[in-house]
Amino acid sequence: MPTRHTPRLVLASASPRRRALLELVGWVFEVVPAAEAEGPPLDGESPVQYARRSAEAKAVAVSREAPDAVVLGADTVVAIDETSLGKPADAADACRMLAALAGRSHWVHTGVSAARAGEVLGSEVASTQVFFRALSSDEIEAYVATGEPLDKAGAYGIQGRGAALVERIEGCYSNVVGLPLSRTRELLIAVDERINAGNGDGQC
Amino acid sequence: MPTRHTPRLVLASASPRRRALLELVGWVFEVVPAAEAEGPPLDGESPVQYARRSAEAKAVAVSREAPDAVVLGADTVVAIDETSLGKPADAADACRMLAALAGRSHWVHTGVSAARAGEVLGSEVASTQVFFRALSSDEIEAYVATGEPLDKAGAYGIQGRGAALVERIEGCYSNVVGLPLSRTRELLIAVDERINAGNGDGQC
Repeated sequence: MPTRHTPRLVLASASPRRRALLELVGWVFEVVPAAEAEGPPLDGESPVQYARRSAEAKAVAVSREAPDAVVLGADTVVAIDETSLGKPADAADACRMLAALAGRSHWVHTGVSAARAGEVLGSEVASTQVFFRALSSDEIEAYVATGEPLDKAGAYGIQGRGAALVERIEGCYSNVVGLPLSRTRELLIAVDERINAGNGDGQC
Repeated sequence: MPTRHTPRLVLASASPRRRALLELVGWVFEVVPAAEAEGPPLDGESPVQYARRSAEAKAVAVSREAPDAVVLGADTVVAIDETSLGKPADAADACRMLAALAGRSHWVHTGVSAARAGEVLGSEVASTQVFFRALSSDEIEAYVATGEPLDKAGAYGIQGRGAALVERIEGCYSNVVGLPLSRTRELLIAVDERINAGNGDGQC
């Protein structure tokens, strides 16, 4: 029998939400946050393409610092009419974003990428449609005043008070929080198989 | 102008999850748990009918003890092929439930009812479709060993480790946790309007 070799796993994200989600997948991992965020989307780059590229960039950057590890990078993008919404610049910007999201649906895309020694081993993008209820300007201002929207892409957190804005979703919930659990698990299994196929005795 | 009168609100549930969700709706409330749970579904009663009846029974029972309050009752039912799954009797029962849910979709219905002085003011049932990924018997046993499934209808908690079993959902997420936020908010607004229409000067 070939000896299976599962390399150590590193999460390239400072987000406590991603960390808590990855713990649910059941793999042991360390956290080494990527040094800096990606810039804005490139000209003509769709939100899905941007989420993938940004996740890959984070995973590759950290994998150069930890060459023996499999490094997982992730990036979550809120998209409305194919425009990516980042984190709001200030409270007024958060109010504008929430007014744009109210009473309609938008998409949340999370790119997840695994890299080793500077090379991408595999990437996934999970997409969830989120339907906001109608919101009054008073409700938007009260939510922004809680401070929750200010550090979140699209100016809301579905796992916090923002839950009260959401009528329904179609797709993976943990993807909206920041890491799609099923897709991440599948990616890690595929990467593990690939590493062991390379290390094995050729039977697979 | 008529004087608006918003009576005190009571949540007829001991569930800390429901309490945390209702806090997100933003109404001030007290907790007075209903004395006992409903029995099993009646012959020919669908899971949706059962969720509604059980929520109404809890709200009405507590409203008799607090006749000046609006009392909110809720009951969450996990349904597979129109069969209601309650809380598992023991670990073996939890394993059987999870094996039945694995690799397919099921429905979660939460009935929400508002009552005052022994009478139902309004009721809603929210329904969400939940898609589980395929699960090995090792995964099921490991999850049951955490103890999380034992006090939960359908033997899983989507807000805990059970999140790792769920591939996607269609509908309201908080409904699967135990209280559908948007529908509950709409119900409370409708009840408040109705109470104030009755108390007002007849202009509406």
